[in-house]
Amino acid sequence: MALRIHRGALAALLLLLVVHAIDAARAPEPRLEMVTTAASGGAGHTAGRARAAASTGCASWRLGVETNNIRGWYSIPAECRGYVSDYMFGDQFRQDCAVAAREAAAYAEALELAGDGSEVWVFDIDDTVLTNLPYYADTGFGAEPYNATYFDEYVANATAPPLPEVLELYEKLLALGIKVVFITGRHDYQREPTVKNLRSAGYHTWEKLVLKPSSLTLGSSVVPYKSGERQKLVDAGYRIVGNMGDQWSDLVGAPEGDRTFKVPDPMYYVG
Amino acid sequence: MALRIHRGALAALLLLLVVHAIDAARAPEPRLEMVTTAASGGAGHTAGRARAAASTGCASWRLGVETNNIRGWYSIPAECRGYVSDYMFGDQFRQDCAVAAREAAAYAEALELAGDGSEVWVFDIDDTVLTNLPYYADTGFGAEPYNATYFDEYVANATAPPLPEVLELYEKLLALGIKVVFITGRHDYQREPTVKNLRSAGYHTWEKLVLKPSSLTLGSSVVPYKSGERQKLVDAGYRIVGNMGDQWSDLVGAPEGDRTFKVPDPMYYVG
Repeated sequence: MALRIHRGALAALLLLLVVHAIDAARAPEPRLEMVTTAASGGAGHTAGRARAAASTGCASWRLGVETNNIRGWYSIPAECRGYVSDYMFGDQFRQDCAVAAREAAAYAEALELAGDGSEVWVFDIDDTVLTNLPYYADTGFGAEPYNATYFDEYVANATAPPLPEVLELYEKLLALGIKVVFITGRHDYQREPTVKNLRSAGYHTWEKLVLKPSSLTLGSSVVPYKSGERQKLVDAGYRIVGNMGDQWSDLVGAPEGDRTFKVPDPMYYVG
Repeated sequence: MALRIHRGALAALLLLLVVHAIDAARAPEPRLEMVTTAASGGAGHTAGRARAAASTGCASWRLGVETNNIRGWYSIPAECRGYVSDYMFGDQFRQDCAVAAREAAAYAEALELAGDGSEVWVFDIDDTVLTNLPYYADTGFGAEPYNATYFDEYVANATAPPLPEVLELYEKLLALGIKVVFITGRHDYQREPTVKNLRSAGYHTWEKLVLKPSSLTLGSSVVPYKSGERQKLVDAGYRIVGNMGDQWSDLVGAPEGDRTFKVPDPMYYVG
């Protein structure tokens, strides 16, 4: 069966579909209201200048988040939705992950290990070893409020992809003889899909997988839980040579581990 | 003009194009080449592509420095000299400083103060309250080795300008009734030009100005010295409500202070 179609119309249709698909995937253009004073230029500004100012403002906001200067936020600034989308799907995020993983690998390779299997590396799970980008791309990149029901479904599906640079680091650490411990903010009732997801993403072995007791609610800081679990490791005779997470609440609170590595994450904040 | 096309083939073509577009937009392939290679593009790369790759790589390097993932470095990557110069003299650095100062001010304004003058804010001096950009602009933005003789001359001249956003924060803190303590890596023999420079830059008063004992050399970590001086403040009955510096060695080591604020600095590393 065949149909007749005008060549120009076909080209236009294709273009429309492709543009729409890119648009749907990449999310809206950076909006032009600004974080502070930089974009308040008014009518005299061109759209290009305003976009550049918004990008500067959102870049400063992201750096503030990554350096733990900005805390306790519930959603990304509305004007940074396009910026965060572009960042997460662009080269910069992957390069930023690669640098974190490369530094961690270089540090681990230079370690003098006891050779008795006592050295461990602590990893957070969500947006550290696995990426929840599929969930966040569906919910406005942190611009929309956290949807616990939908996120629980996402976890139950066990389909989160690995963050490739971190998976590569994981393999290097195992090859060096460093054991891996996962300490996650996921709840203990989510152990089964978490195990399934870790395995399907390529994380085939670990020394411990520590999930958060269901009694700890979303509102309370995870720092006492996560640092407490690290203390248990130290008390049991392990040496935490490295600790990697996407949230500062993964990395602060004694014992932090001999070195900490922050994976970039401008999508949400966990205190 | 029209063409004949099989309906199934058209659907397949459309699907392919849409999938490809989504793919290009949503799922960048894992790129595992690294920062060091990114800027060395060679003959095949156009200058524009090489510059973009270097910029991405240098931005990742800067983020790695700012998040304390990259430690113990002696000079900036050679290929990032232009990037760091552009950053330091451009809008982004000033916006980054403004966000750090704004977050600190908002935090301080929300504090419930005892009203007995016991609350202090700890500031580092170099590239926190004063900027040494004049020195670093003269010495390749950290691409050239640290020149102790020239830097000592620079300090003796007492001409370092204030970082305007931090000076503004300083004034706000004083107005709130929070006292200021400077803990600097400058040596005690540099007290006189340091006092002169602080005053001429607009820092007219302080509770304490702590300089590093001359016995501590460049090679040793400043963390024991700086955290030790903070401990002395706590022991003397002060509450350190905030702590701001451009180096992580200003901010780590108990007692850190109730909140820490990292001022951006991609020019040098002090461990």
